[in-house]
Amino acid sequence: MSEPFSFRLAATDGAARTGAIITAHGVVHTPAFMPVGTQASIKGVHHDDVRVSGAEILLGNTYHLMLRPSAERIAALGGLHAFMRWPHPILTDSGGFQVMSLAPLRKITEDGVTFRSHIDGALVELSPERAVEVQDLLGSDIVMQLDECVRLPAERGDIERAMKLSLRWAERCKRAFEGAAPGRALFGIVQGGDDPALRLESARTLVDIGFPGYAIGGLAVGEPQDVMLKIVSETTPALPADQPRYLMGVGTPDDLLQSIARGVDMFDCVMPTRNGRHGLAFTRFGPINIKNAHHADDPRPLDPESRCPAARDFSRAYLHHLFRSGEALGGTLLSIVNLFYYQDLMAGARAAVAAGRFADFAAETKEQWATKSNRLTH
Amino acid sequence: MSEPFSFRLAATDGAARTGAIITAHGVVHTPAFMPVGTQASIKGVHHDDVRVSGAEILLGNTYHLMLRPSAERIAALGGLHAFMRWPHPILTDSGGFQVMSLAPLRKITEDGVTFRSHIDGALVELSPERAVEVQDLLGSDIVMQLDECVRLPAERGDIERAMKLSLRWAERCKRAFEGAAPGRALFGIVQGGDDPALRLESARTLVDIGFPGYAIGGLAVGEPQDVMLKIVSETTPALPADQPRYLMGVGTPDDLLQSIARGVDMFDCVMPTRNGRHGLAFTRFGPINIKNAHHADDPRPLDPESRCPAARDFSRAYLHHLFRSGEALGGTLLSIVNLFYYQDLMAGARAAVAAGRFADFAAETKEQWATKSNRLTH
Repeated sequence: MSEPFSFRLAATDGAARTGAIITAHGVVHTPAFMPVGTQASIKGVHHDDVRVSGAEILLGNTYHLMLRPSAERIAALGGLHAFMRWPHPILTDSGGFQVMSLAPLRKITEDGVTFRSHIDGALVELSPERAVEVQDLLGSDIVMQLDECVRLPAERGDIERAMKLSLRWAERCKRAFEGAAPGRALFGIVQGGDDPALRLESARTLVDIGFPGYAIGGLAVGEPQDVMLKIVSETTPALPADQPRYLMGVGTPDDLLQSIARGVDMFDCVMPTRNGRHGLAFTRFGPINIKNAHHADDPRPLDPESRCPAARDFSRAYLHHLFRSGEALGGTLLSIVNLFYYQDLMAGARAAVAAGRFADFAAETKEQWATKSNRLTH
Repeated sequence: MSEPFSFRLAATDGAARTGAIITAHGVVHTPAFMPVGTQASIKGVHHDDVRVSGAEILLGNTYHLMLRPSAERIAALGGLHAFMRWPHPILTDSGGFQVMSLAPLRKITEDGVTFRSHIDGALVELSPERAVEVQDLLGSDIVMQLDECVRLPAERGDIERAMKLSLRWAERCKRAFEGAAPGRALFGIVQGGDDPALRLESARTLVDIGFPGYAIGGLAVGEPQDVMLKIVSETTPALPADQPRYLMGVGTPDDLLQSIARGVDMFDCVMPTRNGRHGLAFTRFGPINIKNAHHADDPRPLDPESRCPAARDFSRAYLHHLFRSGEALGGTLLSIVNLFYYQDLMAGARAAVAAGRFADFAAETKEQWATKSNRLTH
């Protein structure tokens, strides 16, 4: 449990990279996708299935966990790894993003953010120091700084103010994190909305402060994909090549391929599980909406060659029936299918970068999505 | 797939029995508990977990399946075993019970029952012949006759009328089932409410008609446990010793032990999964309501010696958290815990009957429930 946190770059291919993040709880191969365990559970999916899907790291939501069951309670129960029985790496966000999106009556000051719990209305304060303390109590391997995230589109003045506040909070988080165990790391978060100059200023200042890894935050918050990718393209060159880069809250399979091509190493998103619960399966042949009526009589599995048992073993007709009947097993099975798909996409990307053929891999993958050769024509 | 349906009695201990039912899809050791797969799914639980729990046979609900996705559709997809990917034995009820409890505007005549689907309001007819046809289309290993079940308490005249109608339907079902594959069987259902004389008349007439197995229906429909057990005690002696006896819709762990002592071989009930979804875990130490506040800080598992991984691996504090947070994984894990508990109870009963110590086994089991030695005192 004492190996220092580090990032080892194994190969690059254009801007795309593959490597490994070493943490106190194990190794994470990059590019990596982190399933989201909002409330210490990947919604509807057993941890064992998450692990077998290939996930090497989970994301936990500080906002949810600090409110229920509370960071202190989780610490008393041995930390988040022991509490949820996931002995592998865990990254936690700072709570800031969900304070903005979920909590009523939030108020941001220089000191931090004050908000009312969406559960019981209690008044809660979250400062940079408290965000680090909570994540210390959880025992996260990768701790995120508290930041202020502005929903796009937004005025440049608002974006700049939030970006600069986030930089000051980054310094305070770094001080609060001093003395943490060597296998753990604190990441800074680049803000600056859709403004390239503000993004560059944020990235450069964060690098001056100095972190073992950097996230790009404040994207996938309403802007078009091309805007997001443009910001990613302009931000990653300003980040150190020998440290991991994490694009927060992203995204679709295509978002992931495009962002890997632009030098991103880590992702998290609720999409595999949320879309799975809503009947959408990600497959080699593109997304399949299993609720569509034409699946009702289709005896074929989602993908007979998938590594995922649920994608191989159950017919589309059966999965369709589960959704039409409101059986929760349907959402669970499609969530598992999607978690496998995302992990296999990352494994394919890692192999392709190592082989120096990432662009071909991305093009072939997208071509197969577009052919939809596996769909029924009626 | 061609071994004839049969029941082999291996040992008796007082009225309690242990044996094996041989069907086209495999062997069922008795006493047997059948998890309920209402809509071709054990609610919230993957089939693999159901199988690993020790279940050798599932129950499917004809009423639900004939309405959605329809028996004809399931037949076209290879039958219920293939459709839901459960290659082991399946028993289906006749649909009669759920017509009574779920369908609006039902009308019972000599010919059968007409009702409106609770899904789309369509008018549906279910005769004894159609009930057998539907179960043929599903491919059930054990087919149940159509019967009329009266909710208790009820007038003797109503009970008698329904019992006699069920006997006439039993004869029609037997004729309709003639020529079925040898590995499949049709069971008759004893009715007669809480009236011992009517129960005896029903049992004797059914035995005269002749079936390879008999169910006791119309119990666990609102009467006290002592009334149910009295009827069971008076009915089983009227049934052939060399054929299986199935007590429908029962019950609690105590109901099962009491009924095994009275000569019952088979059970089905939604209790393990329904109660699990509602936060109640069945354990060696009696039922545990995981939602109670005193579990919030309890690092102990439900039962460190359980055969069930979910009962061993997760703390009560974590399971409590999942329920308090509305995470579906909580209901899934407790459903699995309960399915294992029911199957282990049946395995214990089988071993005890074979060893000639069933009464001791039942007494020891109940004593352990009562000690609640594993509960926190605060």
